[in-house]
Amino acid sequence: MKRIFDIDAWKVLAHDLPKEDKRLQESMTSIGNEYMGMRGMFEETYSGDSHKGIYLGGVWFPDKTRVGWWKNGYPDYFGKAINAVDFVSLDIKINGQSVDLAVDSFTDYQVCLDMKEGVLYRSYVVTKGAAKVKISFERFVSAAFKELYANRIYFENLSAAPVELEVTSFIDANVFNEDANYDQQFWQVLAKKANQEEIALKAQTIANPFGVPQFTTLMTAEHHTDLAVQTAKESDKAVSLTLAGQLAAGESKVFEKRVIVVTSRDYEDANRLDAAASDLLAKQSQQSFDTLKAAQVAAWAKRWAKADVVIEGDDEAQQGIRFNLFQLFSTYYGQDARLNIGPKGFTGEKYGGATYWDTEAFAVPLFLSVADPEVSKTLLQYRHNQLPGAYHNAGQQDLAGALYPMVTFNGIECHNEWEITFEEIHRNGSIAYAIYNYTRYTGDESYVTGDGFDVLVGIARFWADRVHYSKRHDAYMMHGVTGPNEYENNINNNWYTNFLAKWCLTYTDQIADKVSEAKRDEHGLSSQERSKWRDIVAKFYLPEDEELGIFVQHDGFLDKDLTPVAELDPKHLPLNQNWSWDRILRSPYIKQADVLQGIYYFIDDFSQEAKKRNFEFYEPLTVHESSLSPSIHSILAADLQMEDKAVEMYARTARLDLDNYNNDTEDGLHITSMTGSWLSIVQGFAGMRVREGRLHFAPFVPQSWNGYQFHINFRGRLLLVSVAKEGSKIDLLEGDDLTIVLDGQEVILSN
Amino acid sequence: MKRIFDIDAWKVLAHDLPKEDKRLQESMTSIGNEYMGMRGMFEETYSGDSHKGIYLGGVWFPDKTRVGWWKNGYPDYFGKAINAVDFVSLDIKINGQSVDLAVDSFTDYQVCLDMKEGVLYRSYVVTKGAAKVKISFERFVSAAFKELYANRIYFENLSAAPVELEVTSFIDANVFNEDANYDQQFWQVLAKKANQEEIALKAQTIANPFGVPQFTTLMTAEHHTDLAVQTAKESDKAVSLTLAGQLAAGESKVFEKRVIVVTSRDYEDANRLDAAASDLLAKQSQQSFDTLKAAQVAAWAKRWAKADVVIEGDDEAQQGIRFNLFQLFSTYYGQDARLNIGPKGFTGEKYGGATYWDTEAFAVPLFLSVADPEVSKTLLQYRHNQLPGAYHNAGQQDLAGALYPMVTFNGIECHNEWEITFEEIHRNGSIAYAIYNYTRYTGDESYVTGDGFDVLVGIARFWADRVHYSKRHDAYMMHGVTGPNEYENNINNNWYTNFLAKWCLTYTDQIADKVSEAKRDEHGLSSQERSKWRDIVAKFYLPEDEELGIFVQHDGFLDKDLTPVAELDPKHLPLNQNWSWDRILRSPYIKQADVLQGIYYFIDDFSQEAKKRNFEFYEPLTVHESSLSPSIHSILAADLQMEDKAVEMYARTARLDLDNYNNDTEDGLHITSMTGSWLSIVQGFAGMRVREGRLHFAPFVPQSWNGYQFHINFRGRLLLVSVAKEGSKIDLLEGDDLTIVLDGQEVILSN
Repeated sequence: MKRIFDIDAWKVLAHDLPKEDKRLQESMTSIGNEYMGMRGMFEETYSGDSHKGIYLGGVWFPDKTRVGWWKNGYPDYFGKAINAVDFVSLDIKINGQSVDLAVDSFTDYQVCLDMKEGVLYRSYVVTKGAAKVKISFERFVSAAFKELYANRIYFENLSAAPVELEVTSFIDANVFNEDANYDQQFWQVLAKKANQEEIALKAQTIANPFGVPQFTTLMTAEHHTDLAVQTAKESDKAVSLTLAGQLAAGESKVFEKRVIVVTSRDYEDANRLDAAASDLLAKQSQQSFDTLKAAQVAAWAKRWAKADVVIEGDDEAQQGIRFNLFQLFSTYYGQDARLNIGPKGFTGEKYGGATYWDTEAFAVPLFLSVADPEVSKTLLQYRHNQLPGAYHNAGQQDLAGALYPMVTFNGIECHNEWEITFEEIHRNGSIAYAIYNYTRYTGDESYVTGDGFDVLVGIARFWADRVHYSKRHDAYMMHGVTGPNEYENNINNNWYTNFLAKWCLTYTDQIADKVSEAKRDEHGLSSQERSKWRDIVAKFYLPEDEELGIFVQHDGFLDKDLTPVAELDPKHLPLNQNWSWDRILRSPYIKQADVLQGIYYFIDDFSQEAKKRNFEFYEPLTVHESSLSPSIHSILAADLQMEDKAVEMYARTARLDLDNYNNDTEDGLHITSMTGSWLSIVQGFAGMRVREGRLHFAPFVPQSWNGYQFHINFRGRLLLVSVAKEGSKIDLLEGDDLTIVLDGQEVILSN
Repeated sequence: MKRIFDIDAWKVLAHDLPKEDKRLQESMTSIGNEYMGMRGMFEETYSGDSHKGIYLGGVWFPDKTRVGWWKNGYPDYFGKAINAVDFVSLDIKINGQSVDLAVDSFTDYQVCLDMKEGVLYRSYVVTKGAAKVKISFERFVSAAFKELYANRIYFENLSAAPVELEVTSFIDANVFNEDANYDQQFWQVLAKKANQEEIALKAQTIANPFGVPQFTTLMTAEHHTDLAVQTAKESDKAVSLTLAGQLAAGESKVFEKRVIVVTSRDYEDANRLDAAASDLLAKQSQQSFDTLKAAQVAAWAKRWAKADVVIEGDDEAQQGIRFNLFQLFSTYYGQDARLNIGPKGFTGEKYGGATYWDTEAFAVPLFLSVADPEVSKTLLQYRHNQLPGAYHNAGQQDLAGALYPMVTFNGIECHNEWEITFEEIHRNGSIAYAIYNYTRYTGDESYVTGDGFDVLVGIARFWADRVHYSKRHDAYMMHGVTGPNEYENNINNNWYTNFLAKWCLTYTDQIADKVSEAKRDEHGLSSQERSKWRDIVAKFYLPEDEELGIFVQHDGFLDKDLTPVAELDPKHLPLNQNWSWDRILRSPYIKQADVLQGIYYFIDDFSQEAKKRNFEFYEPLTVHESSLSPSIHSILAADLQMEDKAVEMYARTARLDLDNYNNDTEDGLHITSMTGSWLSIVQGFAGMRVREGRLHFAPFVPQSWNGYQFHINFRGRLLLVSVAKEGSKIDLLEGDDLTIVLDGQEVILSN
């Protein structure tokens, strides 16, 4: 744990520039608007260790798969989010010398990510020789105007003598990915422009042999400033404009850089990018920075009104939950059905790819409650759009139906570990579960009987082909899988995977009754095929242990040495940093909820006794070395009225990045696991469930809190749920009357 | 299958230059003398597709491990046999134009690898304009003078007019590995010399960050010829000498190139290489080519006298077995304890590394019988020398004791697939088995109670730490292994691995009684530790199925869909080219003997009924997609008197490369599996066993053969075993009287 920010309800605030933790500070001050985003690196020159990262949603490069030993079925490429052409960098010169905090003397440093506004502020007083200048930065990528990056800088001369100020503004295609395999550059410059009015650079991703479309981006910058234009310059891979002026003692000057970013993702004809950029530039050019910023603040206010969570009596928890929601919304807010939620969002390069099963398992339930249903539906639609890729992936494994990828940008699998790519197929179950979850929550059956059914049929057919019949057991089994617990690979009959596969077959068969005959015919879905599904369901092998009264993680699990984590010498933890992979695989230690993930999905379908036995068996073996693990345990513990355990697990998820728990936040934020703290509060502490179309709550308040409030969007209503030690209250803020169930009692809510 | 050579008892002979199969012809005409070797590429210029490959035993480069996803325990580098500085290439000009069979007209092409002599011959008549010249090549690397490569060429002018002949002889460091990751060159030139007397080039492998010593090699060439020296030349990475002369009509001239190859492997002080090369050069300089060649032929005659196998009535089989022995001996003849038997020997680059468990499992039993015991002992000693590496490897997996590597040059594991590197640990069992096998065969206990004991203790300690105790079963188990059947990975309780591990513990404990107290103390081997071993042995879990009466390959095997190979549509075969890895892993199909490998190792320890039940259960599920598979099945089938099956399996191993069965011989020969045909004949057809210090035979003759003869070296005797349809005869060629058992009857053999 490393806390380098102040505790503040709405701000990520620091008064220090810890040079050894510069990357961590950058990660934590990332901003984004789904369309694009960036780490909190400085605009101005910084010669110390830093990770400059600017990313555009859905702009990527297919990097050739490199493995020591090829295995049939491996994908041809690994999709990599690439660092965009740099439109942020500036060089600031005072009396001819570049400001560079890595070497300069400075005081009054402050950085502040205002989560309420969605604006990043930074300021300091720098001394260059006799000159002393206060520099104050503001920047945002607009939630109201997606193509706009806005940056304003105030310079105030604090010295007695005049100061010569010079600012050079760049657009620079000379960028690298830190995770590039061979120091490859992914951008080639197509066109450059640099004049007094604007600088612009058009670039295209380099060619690839995989038929993946090349992306073209155009960045155009204009500058609003008291400074005077000096020189516009084009170099090999960059353009720049230098502006300058004199600051008298005590005088202030302002500099604004506004960049319009357009890409070929939005314009089929890449030649239209120039005109589009001009239009967009013109659209904002006459507006003041303050007007543009007000629109940004208003957009965020609207989001917060739907989603804010207030925690009374625990400012750390308060900051944690808001930070998580802020970064999650910065990454994704459902505005583009072609996008998804990458595990690091716009805050780093690790993991490549944009889309993991995290989205369906962890993000959909949150977006269902904190945003309009369209946001979640857009996430479902994303998978429908990528159904051809899923069929391709199944075909790569010689299997029928659709296999959704572990990692992808375009539906085609792009991960290349056989034990994950070929085996961690439970992901298919979560894709189906998200459809079920959406339908249950919204009451809207139009998706599941429409496009959703296409997805379900593809998934059901995959499972029906992936099982095999074991004569000896007169049962259908599933060998060679990796469950959510990636600390075991290539196991047989993972209970979670089998359970989900069985459920998928049943659910698809049920939905097949509800869809039109035309829809069934479209898929050639015969009664024979459905009866085969039912046969598989009837004989689906699910490992259980009667003596222990538990579902068994997989066939061999109980043969392990089942020493609980608590009996390990703590020096071994985290296992993934201290043990060989071999030792981890053979151990009983569970990276993240596996059997318990299945119980969580269908939490109302198991008896409290069964849930308790499984929780008490598996939780002591769980090391929670995935950031996705604690929240599921928190919710189940709350369900089992193990409140202390629920709070303990919550604590592991709420400030994961703010306190750098895993000591890796310098690489970027854990975006998808940011849902965990919200899920823990709402589904855990407040016990929110949807049962037969009704919202249920059964709240409690953690000991150390005074109370908490959160917003819930449900079927056209906006609710404010207020939980205090003395009791809970639910207000209907918007929408028609609604009957809910609170602590087992029906309550009618009126506006 | 593709046969591009004539059937001949002693020769690999072709009268064609099939340009599309040039690489295949090169592989098949490889020569070697353990110290160095080369593919059969041409000396002269050839502009068509070809793979120039020259390798020096034990000269390698540690190539940085590249994997998509790092796993704790992976080795830092992959050891790669690197293409040596090219000392073979020549350019031959006739009337100023280079001879190049890729484009020139030629007739009377013939290439002949004489396996009796160990000499490669080649000749043709080439037409260049009006000139017509017969060129005849001979070359060998000397089995009698390891540093010597000798090359003689006769030029005969068949045209009516005189012909200008020019030969340029190179030593060229500008070489690549075909399997290099990034077109990297591994040699840097240290020194060059080119004058009328000799040309020489000293080169060093490039630096590496792994502490692996860099190798320095020095090639020095002198030329004996009727041609006159023209120019000596040094270029950036090469040296050359050009010689020329005129051939009158009908006139012949001779050109000889002799190269001395010395390396820093043999001279601790690399500065001594020059003096060493001078000495060696001088040593042979006064000898004629014919004298040098006679020494080569004599050395091979000696080998053949000890090892030849004669097959009567089947010339294809005859050629097959001699080719296999020839290439095996070319790769390894036990002259350097630091060397081992790479799967492709000096014939290609695939697989990297020099040493696999193939050596102990397949090569040691052969060398025991066809060479002096020192050859096998040298192979054992190799592993003893690498014991520190084996301890390192176990440590990499957080385990005690010694884990011999899957692939190595220096004892340090250099393979990087977790399912192999971390899991295919049965290899450790074969290392111990080879010690047992040597001891049983030779009757010499000095190794096993000396250095061998060090190896056994390391291995036993590994197994004792690698098992875990399963409370539920009150048994020791071994999870997470890959057996010899690499078509299953990460399985639990592989019968073969468990059986071998259990045997290792028992055997080491037995030997511990025989070694000195000092030796036990040296290892700190206490009675407590040995009693722990005995406890593990007593409770070692071995999966068996009572109903089927078989040993079970691993815990989950019988739950599979056990459809036999014969019921598969043949279009699916070979599986490794037609199925996804996922499908292969989940299938019941066995790449190579697994349970049956264990039964083979201890063939006398199981009842015929047990052997039969296991053979009949597993063989129909086996696809033999490893070249190491058929021979084990052949031997077991012969043991079970299933003669047809034994012959069928033999046929799959005997001419694997000669007929290019697997369609991959262009990459190089399958050196280690070449033992298989010999094992099938001797241990299979002739039923050779060693029981309580006595040789046993129980021979039969395959239907299509008239008979066969082979040599056996056993405890100071040389036997000739002659098997004919009418009966078998065993002659003692050398050594004292010996009692053997033939078809169950004791026979006393006298010289």
